[in-house]
Amino acid sequence: MEIGLEELQLAARNHGMPLEALRYDRTPAGLHYLLVHYDIPDVDADRFRLIVDGHVERPMELTLADLRERPKVSAPVTLECAGNGRALYEPRPVSQPWLLEAVGTAEWTGASLAALLAEAGVRNGAVDVSFAGADHGLEGGVEQDYERGLPLAEAIRPDLLLAYDMNGHALPPQHGFPLRLVVPGWYGMTSVKWLLRIRVLDRPFDGYQNEHGYRWKTEDDAAGTPVERMRVRSLMVPPGFPTFLPRSRNLRPGPVTLQGRAWSGAGPVARVEISIDDARTWAEAALEQPPGPHAWHRWTFEWDATPGDHVLASRATDATGAEQPLRPDWNVGGYTNNAVQRVPVVVAGEF
Amino acid sequence: MEIGLEELQLAARNHGMPLEALRYDRTPAGLHYLLVHYDIPDVDADRFRLIVDGHVERPMELTLADLRERPKVSAPVTLECAGNGRALYEPRPVSQPWLLEAVGTAEWTGASLAALLAEAGVRNGAVDVSFAGADHGLEGGVEQDYERGLPLAEAIRPDLLLAYDMNGHALPPQHGFPLRLVVPGWYGMTSVKWLLRIRVLDRPFDGYQNEHGYRWKTEDDAAGTPVERMRVRSLMVPPGFPTFLPRSRNLRPGPVTLQGRAWSGAGPVARVEISIDDARTWAEAALEQPPGPHAWHRWTFEWDATPGDHVLASRATDATGAEQPLRPDWNVGGYTNNAVQRVPVVVAGEF
Repeated sequence: MEIGLEELQLAARNHGMPLEALRYDRTPAGLHYLLVHYDIPDVDADRFRLIVDGHVERPMELTLADLRERPKVSAPVTLECAGNGRALYEPRPVSQPWLLEAVGTAEWTGASLAALLAEAGVRNGAVDVSFAGADHGLEGGVEQDYERGLPLAEAIRPDLLLAYDMNGHALPPQHGFPLRLVVPGWYGMTSVKWLLRIRVLDRPFDGYQNEHGYRWKTEDDAAGTPVERMRVRSLMVPPGFPTFLPRSRNLRPGPVTLQGRAWSGAGPVARVEISIDDARTWAEAALEQPPGPHAWHRWTFEWDATPGDHVLASRATDATGAEQPLRPDWNVGGYTNNAVQRVPVVVAGEF
Repeated sequence: MEIGLEELQLAARNHGMPLEALRYDRTPAGLHYLLVHYDIPDVDADRFRLIVDGHVERPMELTLADLRERPKVSAPVTLECAGNGRALYEPRPVSQPWLLEAVGTAEWTGASLAALLAEAGVRNGAVDVSFAGADHGLEGGVEQDYERGLPLAEAIRPDLLLAYDMNGHALPPQHGFPLRLVVPGWYGMTSVKWLLRIRVLDRPFDGYQNEHGYRWKTEDDAAGTPVERMRVRSLMVPPGFPTFLPRSRNLRPGPVTLQGRAWSGAGPVARVEISIDDARTWAEAALEQPPGPHAWHRWTFEWDATPGDHVLASRATDATGAEQPLRPDWNVGGYTNNAVQRVPVVVAGEF
């Protein structure tokens, strides 16, 4: 693998969640993964207005106070970047070079999107709803505010939030201050940050980020299919302690509790299995209930570590029967890589 | 430049401060640069004890409550990683591959280290004070808790803090919860996080991070000199808006306020100059007073952007007369790169 300066510029700005932070039910701010498409905009909360318009009976313009006065809804939601694992594909698609860390779970608090849309009165014939943020840039030759569309049926789900708080505090600037969308179950690209405008459309949304970005395809010139829900995945806290470079793992012999998290955008996780022999044999981990229907499950596995080299792995299966693959499912954009994580460890009395 | 997997693993965990965050006097948590040497330890605040021992009259053991009961000291302090700019050296030293972003300024609140040492009673003959954290790893073949030494004369300066709050809230886990050292003026490696033990020594501290790490040298087998205070530096908020990849800058013609920050570990900044012609000619920027003696200065510069390609640059000079160089001062470890930042921009009416 050889990463160039352009990608390093993205990797230096954006950041993953160090995997030891899988220990937290709710990821502390600053540890939650962060992807900023363009620049972090400087939105003045006092002048902020959310526009709701398009194919609705009653267009609206709301201040932050208007939104905070509405019934408050809170939920822990796991968000993962659609490009998580991109740098582990071969050949490697060139973009933000994520390894495994582009995930996090926060308690998001805000107003219900469905209630807002009901108040605005969605007209017959509505198809999609688009969400535009203040994040401005040039991509694929198109100057744009970051904007994503959602099918109406998804937008009126009861669990979508217009979030103004993260873990009980106002959103940090980098997570969308003062307002962002949170779409549980979907990869993070749809949870538009620095949200300024919601448009109800009587035709499919054809903006850049749906038509060109976030398409799953194996050939450059194919139309592909849209990237939507998070595939089933599990990750492990690498046990023991690291070597500074290359961040390999060192562990003393004896009993150790392996732990991690598992999630799926398709529903609950049904099973997590652990391997200590590089995915040759598997044993079932203890799986906890998640802190909410759209948050990750904690899993644990008791292991009596014996001296020598081992490759640990975890594999989750969700309620639909979908299971993590051993090898990544390559695609042009480097999306949805939910291949089983491998964690080589050296177990020894001395290092 | 070609970054390998080992370095990318560091870049994916650690993160810089996106340069648009130079707009904040105090960097919001999660935007401040972060370097974790090994893993983020899980320190139980209730069981936490700070040990103060070694060459003192009265060894001490303090709880977090003991520390919080002591007189509270707050200060905005700019911290920069000693390796900031490492990936811009040629040949490129292999380690955390920072570009420009490893800096931040927080309001740190805590107890005075000098007062604590006075209470413990430093004995005659004391030379160094060492600070050990809970962060544990293997580096250069040495298993270690991260530990740094400071000359006694520096340790008893009145402005060193044992900090428990960052920007008015308890330290986030990744910034040293529940307690860290803050050494204003020095590169960040000395501001030991997850601090557990302070030892006063009657001999020079000879631990790994002083004897092997953070040495400035131009030949592998040289002893080198210790890396200590931050060199004078300025950085600019890249104006306009970015292209997603390669993060180049696009700007419309007309008046624009360029802005950024400047700092030095040797004292106040005396002057910041701006060039819009790739460092051929310079003009003086307006320089503001910093929010505290150890925090960065804001600077601004009014520019009437004309269509075409320009390379912007900023150059700071501190009160000692030290000036940022145009070319980096190469060294084995890739430390102290304070070379002038270049920001290519395309000014046009349409993109």
